[in-house]
Amino acid sequence: MSEFWNNRVKNLSPYVPGEQPKDKKLIKLNTNENPYPPSLKVIEAVQKAADDSLRLYPDPECTMLRETIAACYNVKPDQVFASNGSDEILAFAFGAFFESAGVSKGSGKAQPVLFPDITYSFYPVYCDLWDIRYQTVPLCEDFTINTEDYKKNGAENCAGCGGVILPNPNAPTGIALEAEKILSLADFLEKQKKVIIIDEAYAAFGAKSVVPYINKYPNLLTVHTLSKYASLAGLRVGFAIGSEKLIEALKRMRDCFNSYTLDRMAQAGAAAAVADTAYYSEINGRVIKTRQRVTKELCSSGFTVLPSSANFIFIKFPGVKGNDVYSALREKGILARHFNKERIKDFLRVTIGTDDDMDIFLDCCKEIIKTPKRND
Amino acid sequence: MSEFWNNRVKNLSPYVPGEQPKDKKLIKLNTNENPYPPSLKVIEAVQKAADDSLRLYPDPECTMLRETIAACYNVKPDQVFASNGSDEILAFAFGAFFESAGVSKGSGKAQPVLFPDITYSFYPVYCDLWDIRYQTVPLCEDFTINTEDYKKNGAENCAGCGGVILPNPNAPTGIALEAEKILSLADFLEKQKKVIIIDEAYAAFGAKSVVPYINKYPNLLTVHTLSKYASLAGLRVGFAIGSEKLIEALKRMRDCFNSYTLDRMAQAGAAAAVADTAYYSEINGRVIKTRQRVTKELCSSGFTVLPSSANFIFIKFPGVKGNDVYSALREKGILARHFNKERIKDFLRVTIGTDDDMDIFLDCCKEIIKTPKRND
Repeated sequence: MSEFWNNRVKNLSPYVPGEQPKDKKLIKLNTNENPYPPSLKVIEAVQKAADDSLRLYPDPECTMLRETIAACYNVKPDQVFASNGSDEILAFAFGAFFESAGVSKGSGKAQPVLFPDITYSFYPVYCDLWDIRYQTVPLCEDFTINTEDYKKNGAENCAGCGGVILPNPNAPTGIALEAEKILSLADFLEKQKKVIIIDEAYAAFGAKSVVPYINKYPNLLTVHTLSKYASLAGLRVGFAIGSEKLIEALKRMRDCFNSYTLDRMAQAGAAAAVADTAYYSEINGRVIKTRQRVTKELCSSGFTVLPSSANFIFIKFPGVKGNDVYSALREKGILARHFNKERIKDFLRVTIGTDDDMDIFLDCCKEIIKTPKRND
Repeated sequence: MSEFWNNRVKNLSPYVPGEQPKDKKLIKLNTNENPYPPSLKVIEAVQKAADDSLRLYPDPECTMLRETIAACYNVKPDQVFASNGSDEILAFAFGAFFESAGVSKGSGKAQPVLFPDITYSFYPVYCDLWDIRYQTVPLCEDFTINTEDYKKNGAENCAGCGGVILPNPNAPTGIALEAEKILSLADFLEKQKKVIIIDEAYAAFGAKSVVPYINKYPNLLTVHTLSKYASLAGLRVGFAIGSEKLIEALKRMRDCFNSYTLDRMAQAGAAAAVADTAYYSEINGRVIKTRQRVTKELCSSGFTVLPSSANFIFIKFPGVKGNDVYSALREKGILARHFNKERIKDFLRVTIGTDDDMDIFLDCCKEIIKTPKRND
């Protein structure tokens, strides 16, 4: 804290990203990176872009990248926005579509934005950044999202909300939502002139994308990242697909913040990645197969594993506390992610690594539940 | 406009960056890019960083880059913040240090932030983004900044302000400010617990940096970019230097927005650039020499040229209107920047290009003032 900080920055509780350890020997299963390398075409495109033209500004509209995405997803380039990772796009989207308490001039008290009680922990941070009221909606007992709850909910028992954001599949549970349920909620919210954001960061690993429905629902924004499916967490590229009017709002936010968010290498590399669907189908098919094998093996050994459609699993060790499991795994050289939060504090989120990594992980898991428990 | 936009995005007037023409034949003197290529060491570092490690997140703290900057500027790494261009850093800084009207809880009406009436046109955009009140302070008749005016000014004739931002040298005038005057203002504002931001984007071309004084003035933040002096507009890297507490606030803002703003290539390339001071002294020395020669030649031909310490000049053609000059130059294949704004609408901002480019530019200028004026 400092006397030179304003009230906003004093009151913010920043998002804490997963650890990026300096110790390269650790098996890193904590930030959902893809265990396989990016497409060779990406590396080539990035290297080709690294030339004397770096002295010039990049294309602020990311035209070539947006055209490539549009062609792959069968939408128009003006229905695509590209920027510095999906987190930045979410920051812009919260700033553009969800009303701030301070700026809801003449429209009375802003209604709260709704999202699950257990979900990506950056959402409440964006709300605080933009002074947006929010209300969390509890997941069901089995950790699934009941979209009907989002039609009933509103602040102080009044009907209506300020908008909804849901990840599909949800994080850290990995559980996917049927497209039909999302579309029914989009339809409900459209009548209230409210936006629904579907964060499809992990959709490539098993959830059904709602991109094909953006023309039917002008209030439906989908957000995507190349960090997970395209094995490019280090390139910092995400994109959004939605109606032209929603995309225009994201551009306005960007141009009030930083007109050039994607450097020349990122634009070139991302376009190459989006186009190379064959390579990514192959490696992500392998991730899914490994996930299925690991899940089966853990379940048969007495672990609780939520049904994942993502590149991670959310698991509970029989009879061992979450933070003890976290520490025990770390001692054995495996880094997983633990959230010290009600309902999920005995779970661990574990990224699906290579088959070799996961074999080591499985052996460690079995050892941990065999070892006499500490503090007992 | 759309029924799905919130009040913020409806009311914003985005910054409009200079044109990035698709026509490569134009001599591009409109966005202050460096005419010389970046250091070869940058290209090598970027290409080396483009490998399979792109699957992993970059270092969110940009440790290696910050350490390199700290060593070059003789400050501590914790006094350095690096991010996606100086525009993004300014967006974070406005959000962290200047009070928003909506969040000035309990502190009464927020005092206005002060900056010149003629300056970087992104500053009022940031204010609107964060709902910050501002007041512009007129430049003197000769387009210089009188820092004493910033001690007198305040909203509605009351003393005090919410903070100050000044570019040094100023844009688009190119005129530099003496460090002593900045420090006197910093001292004045420190007593009021207000922050002063010095935007040193163009300082390498002739202004005196106030970085050496950050330990004396805990309210002094300097903002820098690699786009101009390091010939890396396409890499998107900027940095700020200031007291640890100011830097901590910028990190909080970033971590509420997008934890990983610099990709792996940008971090590696930027560090290589900052370290290669010999190369950049050489090319920027050439830019300064060309500026001096062009200024001399224009002045002796009757043009008004403000005394520039930047990599651009701000010039007025004798007897020709600013927008006519802009069009005439464009017809001849030269792109400059025109601001349709009171006091400066007959000026053009012209980036210093190579000597060959500037010879063509000089010939065109002389032709334009010889040609009988249109609409006369």
